[in-house]
Amino acid sequence: MIRASIVGGSGYTGGELLRLLLGHPEVEIMQATSQKHLGEYVYQTHPNLRKQTSLKFSAPDDLEPCDVLFLAMPHGKAQHHINQYAALAEAIMDLSADFRLQDPETYKKWYGAAHAAPHWLDKFVYGLPELHRDEIKHTKYISGVGCNATACNLAMLPLVKAGLVNLGQPVIFEIKVGSSEGGASVNPGSHHPERSGVVRTFSSFGHRHTAEVIQELNLQKPALTISSIDLVRGALATAHVIIDTHITKKELWKAYRAVVNENPCLRLVKERRGVYRVPEPKILAGSNYADLGFEWDAANGHLVAMCAIDNLMKGASGSAVQSMNLMCGFDEMMGLSFPGLHPI
Amino acid sequence: MIRASIVGGSGYTGGELLRLLLGHPEVEIMQATSQKHLGEYVYQTHPNLRKQTSLKFSAPDDLEPCDVLFLAMPHGKAQHHINQYAALAEAIMDLSADFRLQDPETYKKWYGAAHAAPHWLDKFVYGLPELHRDEIKHTKYISGVGCNATACNLAMLPLVKAGLVNLGQPVIFEIKVGSSEGGASVNPGSHHPERSGVVRTFSSFGHRHTAEVIQELNLQKPALTISSIDLVRGALATAHVIIDTHITKKELWKAYRAVVNENPCLRLVKERRGVYRVPEPKILAGSNYADLGFEWDAANGHLVAMCAIDNLMKGASGSAVQSMNLMCGFDEMMGLSFPGLHPI
Amino acid sequence: MIRASIVGGSGYTGGELLRLLLGHPEVEIMQATSQKHLGEYVYQTHPNLRKQTSLKFSAPDDLEPCDVLFLAMPHGKAQHHINQYAALAEAIMDLSADFRLQDPETYKKWYGAAHAAPHWLDKFVYGLPELHRDEIKHTKYISGVGCNATACNLAMLPLVKAGLVNLGQPVIFEIKVGSSEGGASVNPGSHHPERSGVVRTFSSFGHRHTAEVIQELNLQKPALTISSIDLVRGALATAHVIIDTHITKKELWKAYRAVVNENPCLRLVKERRGVYRVPEPKILAGSNYADLGFEWDAANGHLVAMCAIDNLMKGASGSAVQSMNLMCGFDEMMGLSFPGLHPI
Amino acid sequence: MIRASIVGGSGYTGGELLRLLLGHPEVEIMQATSQKHLGEYVYQTHPNLRKQTSLKFSAPDDLEPCDVLFLAMPHGKAQHHINQYAALAEAIMDLSADFRLQDPETYKKWYGAAHAAPHWLDKFVYGLPELHRDEIKHTKYISGVGCNATACNLAMLPLVKAGLVNLGQPVIFEIKVGSSEGGASVNPGSHHPERSGVVRTFSSFGHRHTAEVIQELNLQKPALTISSIDLVRGALATAHVIIDTHITKKELWKAYRAVVNENPCLRLVKERRGVYRVPEPKILAGSNYADLGFEWDAANGHLVAMCAIDNLMKGASGSAVQSMNLMCGFDEMMGLSFPGLHPI
Repeated sequence: MIRASIVGGSGYTGGELLRLLLGHPEVEIMQATSQKHLGEYVYQTHPNLRKQTSLKFSAPDDLEPCDVLFLAMPHGKAQHHINQYAALAEAIMDLSADFRLQDPETYKKWYGAAHAAPHWLDKFVYGLPELHRDEIKHTKYISGVGCNATACNLAMLPLVKAGLVNLGQPVIFEIKVGSSEGGASVNPGSHHPERSGVVRTFSSFGHRHTAEVIQELNLQKPALTISSIDLVRGALATAHVIIDTHITKKELWKAYRAVVNENPCLRLVKERRGVYRVPEPKILAGSNYADLGFEWDAANGHLVAMCAIDNLMKGASGSAVQSMNLMCGFDEMMGLSFPGLHPI
Repeated sequence: MIRASIVGGSGYTGGELLRLLLGHPEVEIMQATSQKHLGEYVYQTHPNLRKQTSLKFSAPDDLEPCDVLFLAMPHGKAQHHINQYAALAEAIMDLSADFRLQDPETYKKWYGAAHAAPHWLDKFVYGLPELHRDEIKHTKYISGVGCNATACNLAMLPLVKAGLVNLGQPVIFEIKVGSSEGGASVNPGSHHPERSGVVRTFSSFGHRHTAEVIQELNLQKPALTISSIDLVRGALATAHVIIDTHITKKELWKAYRAVVNENPCLRLVKERRGVYRVPEPKILAGSNYADLGFEWDAANGHLVAMCAIDNLMKGASGSAVQSMNLMCGFDEMMGLSFPGLHPI
Repeated sequence: MIRASIVGGSGYTGGELLRLLLGHPEVEIMQATSQKHLGEYVYQTHPNLRKQTSLKFSAPDDLEPCDVLFLAMPHGKAQHHINQYAALAEAIMDLSADFRLQDPETYKKWYGAAHAAPHWLDKFVYGLPELHRDEIKHTKYISGVGCNATACNLAMLPLVKAGLVNLGQPVIFEIKVGSSEGGASVNPGSHHPERSGVVRTFSSFGHRHTAEVIQELNLQKPALTISSIDLVRGALATAHVIIDTHITKKELWKAYRAVVNENPCLRLVKERRGVYRVPEPKILAGSNYADLGFEWDAANGHLVAMCAIDNLMKGASGSAVQSMNLMCGFDEMMGLSFPGLHPI
Repeated sequence: MIRASIVGGSGYTGGELLRLLLGHPEVEIMQATSQKHLGEYVYQTHPNLRKQTSLKFSAPDDLEPCDVLFLAMPHGKAQHHINQYAALAEAIMDLSADFRLQDPETYKKWYGAAHAAPHWLDKFVYGLPELHRDEIKHTKYISGVGCNATACNLAMLPLVKAGLVNLGQPVIFEIKVGSSEGGASVNPGSHHPERSGVVRTFSSFGHRHTAEVIQELNLQKPALTISSIDLVRGALATAHVIIDTHITKKELWKAYRAVVNENPCLRLVKERRGVYRVPEPKILAGSNYADLGFEWDAANGHLVAMCAIDNLMKGASGSAVQSMNLMCGFDEMMGLSFPGLHPI
């Protein structure tokens, strides 16, 4: 039984961590902090947790030592207090973007400011088990993942791993995302009358998660174009890439099957009939699965690779718990068994 | 050709007024004010108006004389400056709640503060043509209507007008409403991840629009219970009332047909087959129609009376333009011909 | 470990049963039948079950003996084959309406035809543990519950149980429901362009679930008015009832607290602040909780009692598994621990 | 005043034609046919038309001579009866795909069967005024447009017209579409519980509308990838194309402004602030505008060109009425003045 605490428990990733850890058989939650909701029951902010726990939000300054400390604060906060947090807990999982990029220069380029704790960057392992399972098992500092980056990275993983794609060529990622990606704070664009029914390409180029795709897959020219659609949870990344026309159907299936078989959270969705023939995020709400799929125009090598995830689960809190499981020697899927709903 | 200006042009009712008046053959829009969006094109706030007008928002202090001044400010503002506005325009249409209630004591009871210009209250006519067509034709001061009140009042109008309901008995109104009722400003409950897919009874009792139902229909015990549902525009009011069991089906149909025939914006929806058998707000988006319907349990006299409207049109800006038409001697439906869409 | 099979596994309640039973530590699923999808993997119909099971749909005629047989067929089927099913399994849980009503005459009145196996009616216990926990523990034949009936029954349960309501007076239930209530088969009204954004009162009077409210709560004059809204899973029942004006706030709280404390699946939602102050179905998707709430106009005794559920869980498959747990001597909440998601 | 009739009036494009022509000052509607809804009022199928018309659906066999005959049947029907229709009306507007492609071989390639009236193909002008305004003015036979093709063609029009793009290079179109694209008939994928909240890439390659992009823009390698999202009306096409890195920002703006200024239904949406900075389909519901936009990575020439439309308007019935206006010598925008709604 490990003791875990959450800094920044009132946001959406904090709420998902609470839900997952409350249901985790090997974890005892000690504290969840929130200055804004200090002293309130966590279920007043996260109403799904009513009757699950009588935990109240603690003051950030009252944080006590624990085994694993989850940091679920807005970007740019954790790096300023990392020494303090490291003094409180042996293991740290930071779900912000602060420790995802290993190179301080890269961080500065994408986040527009020098990193406040650059010497900490290479202590953190990027917390995507499908890419770093062994390193995660042997570290105490794990970084969270960007949700859009995760959808892109997993969409391309089978192709990259099997060496079926030239890393130097351009890859166009079209990503459709739900409103929970924007976090729990309101803004004019998240106002329901403006956000409902939307198809809004809010980022055509230069999204910060691009840096994680470059770092993790070693792709040299990824372009991410991201559109908001009417959905709360979920993201679908669609990669357009040209592969060699000599590559056979058999090789493609082999590449996907290999990756899916090695990774308990990956599934291949490629059916010939029925309503659900390709990956779709809606059925993944609350699940830690990433569903992969591909379509292919053999004549010209244009391949469409897809990955659907729940951005708050596999794209954030789910991957963090999965990484914690590996780090702690638990079963990789412990506490992550909810398969999602149908219909939803 | 009359010259009209709008005070408070950046909100949702202001935006609808702009759309309607820009398309009105007898109106020239002079100014629309907004302190927040001062100097910006109105189409930057109301993107549907792009290529419709090159009007920019004016400063409230730069308001110039015009023929009809529309006030579309938040509640509680217009009453403090009504003399000033009356000096600028011969005719005033106030879309807020400030001049809806004729009795200062009633205003104080429901709005929690003494009215700032009580002697103005009886100069205003309540701007629902279905109730006050003749008075509207002969006034220069018209008050807007509450959207929920309008749905309730029109749901009961045929029964009340035909004397089929005892005004002293309780009437339970269940109202389902879209998110545009909350206005253009964000709040935690309007954040898309929280508001999407919602069924939220935010007001079980005591909604301020109740006062307009009491005043206009003379019902003595109306109770309004209001629930947010996943919709942007639209409201459906369902009245539960007990009528005398001697009342015949024929009398009911006669009562509804009479009201529908006299009022160009009312329609009776009561079909035996097809998908659209009862009033529904979705097909009314952008339309000034109010769709009425009823179902009836003859055995015990329990009657369900329904009214669907677009809350921003018949429940706000549409009724205001309809009233302006009557006041100015134009055709009652001028500029209000858009019938709504199917599907939508 | 008990062996369970499902007849009619391709519908929505069948799919939920599969999800719940696959995750149940004391159940082994033997078969799920579907003539239409015979031989297909169950995850092709219920895509959330991919990588959860390699079960394929069996032919209804190939059903083998098991311990507990779940019948999840359309209404009117099970009663014709009940003897045959009873020969295959010691315990039967029928999720259709066939064995909900104990009186053959009542069945005929509401379902329009004589019951095919009237002598079986009193062998079945109505499977709502909150009303029949002890009987469920001692029976082998359990009937499922109507989703709308369950929302109504649980909304009124605290008041009825505490004797705070006169059973002879009229109770008006307004129910807002999602599209999954209509089942997995398409119809013109469920076509997305027609069903999206809808507020459609498809049943003003006479819904068949009314019979379950009369039978279970002994209310003599319940009226159910049901409206479709834009939601997939979920139902909110709102009961309007007049209580004695001498009843105090303290008595009301006591009545609710008693019921909530005795029943692990019931929660009281009554907050003074925050977004989630009243019961809402959206956060219950996939959960077996029923959230109760009430508001009260002390002056006239008008009480609004609310109950939100996931219609496929507490309103169908969840209650069935909860009942199975009681019947088999398992923990009442076994396999029902998913708390729902926020946001969703 | 011209007399117009509609064959196939009960579908979604037929319904939009009815709405538009009923509001058109120079058109009198004579007949709308529907075998399925024969004898019913058109407003029973298209509920927005209640109180707009007392027209009833006619039998297809009872079609009488008129000036302009609109054919709004499913694909593959009109070509079999075109001689018969041409005998009834001087002018024909066919909204199906039957006469869009001018080359019989191309038709066969994309639609899988030989064309039944190949000699008619070159008599029809492709009815997109932005590409064929002058030809439309001088023909009597006009073909409708594919909705996805129209979004793609207009997205690329400014670049192609200004010669800024190499027609031989690949262009990747990602298209997000609403459910009304699938027509008025139900299917398992359009069932609300399955279609709501969806992100479903139902066509990765080979969509038939590709042929219209090749024909109309002379692009040699367009690839259309189409995803269903949760929306009823609307489509957003996003084209990814590489342009010469020497092309300047000024040239791009000039290309877009030229096209937008020449075409009353095109608008450029490219704002630096506010919620609506890029083209979005939601505000176009019911409008005939196509909103264009672009973003550009100057470093590598990757250009993202966007076009948002209402698929039933500019992508179908709206373009048909616009073409009819040109053919008949009316103002191009006559009857097409509805600007769309905000919020919606």
